[in-house]
Amino acid sequence: MIRELILKNRSYRRFYQETTIDLETLKELVDLARCSASAANRQPLKYILSCGPEKNALVFQHLAFAASLKDWSGPAEGERPSAYIIVLGDTEISKSFGVDPGIAAQSILLGAVDRGLGGCMLGAIQRDGLRKALDIPERYEILLVIALGKPGETVVLETVSPDGNTTYWRDKDSVHHVPKRSLDDIIIG
Amino acid sequence: MIRELILKNRSYRRFYQETTIDLETLKELVDLARCSASAANRQPLKYILSCGPEKNALVFQHLAFAASLKDWSGPAEGERPSAYIIVLGDTEISKSFGVDPGIAAQSILLGAVDRGLGGCMLGAIQRDGLRKALDIPERYEILLVIALGKPGETVVLETVSPDGNTTYWRDKDSVHHVPKRSLDDIIIG
Repeated sequence: MIRELILKNRSYRRFYQETTIDLETLKELVDLARCSASAANRQPLKYILSCGPEKNALVFQHLAFAASLKDWSGPAEGERPSAYIIVLGDTEISKSFGVDPGIAAQSILLGAVDRGLGGCMLGAIQRDGLRKALDIPERYEILLVIALGKPGETVVLETVSPDGNTTYWRDKDSVHHVPKRSLDDIIIG
Repeated sequence: MIRELILKNRSYRRFYQETTIDLETLKELVDLARCSASAANRQPLKYILSCGPEKNALVFQHLAFAASLKDWSGPAEGERPSAYIIVLGDTEISKSFGVDPGIAAQSILLGAVDRGLGGCMLGAIQRDGLRKALDIPERYEILLVIALGKPGETVVLETVSPDGNTTYWRDKDSVHHVPKRSLDDIIIG
């Protein structure tokens, strides 16, 4: 059943913005990250939650969505994320964060999908601007923003074509296509 | 239900070594990673699988288990992992691998737990030795080794004590205790 959840957990970038997500749900999602593995159990990750319209707008304006879609500058008003979880690295605990952000983000997104939600990990962040807007102390490195909402788009996996191009694309019906390398391509021994 | 799986997915370091894992299972687990998110969909991760006694022994001797348990040098013969998935970064695709290894490893381990197995991500690897032993080309950066097997130990989560010490420990009954920071400690805004 984890396979179904992983297949359903696509990177969604357009949402039914009117479907709100409450703070309690965000806390439950962070709790999944909290109970996941951390290198040497140091647990250097900290989190900022956002699910209200003003804070969401502040976060949104410091994000870039889907750099590979050249003719799309991100979700329009009405299809934007309903919530965000900002993943920070506490430099007073650790100077590097290794695999922890990936583990945490995957747990959070699988938890979201399990609740009928979905989202996307965003690494293209105007970090200085976001830090200023949310008054994030210098002690915390901004690692990732996880955008969350009720998905409002269809995303399909397909096999990479022989030219090896992995760039995702959208068709005329606005379906988002994601080429994945085959199992034979990625298992080398 | 993902919560149950995440809670069950502890870092296991002792196994019923006689319970083997076949290659097909390892491929199914890698397929979960393959279908998970990858930054900009570049998919730079490659994998080496090991589930036979000779190859397992080669991998095992280049790993360090549980650095924080000073009086334990790793699982004894009979309680060692039954299989390994070595996670590599293909430097011809990307020079840095960001959150991808954490995402992939979490998908693989949740898939293992879903099958009644379990494991541990290991970053303390004698990389030069492992590269030589398995003849891994320089092109591939050795990122992680995921040890897998049928768990042969009990691991419990508990709350970090007021002194903030997150070091895991084993009690006299050989139960492995993992102190986790509280939700209030990790949500800062």
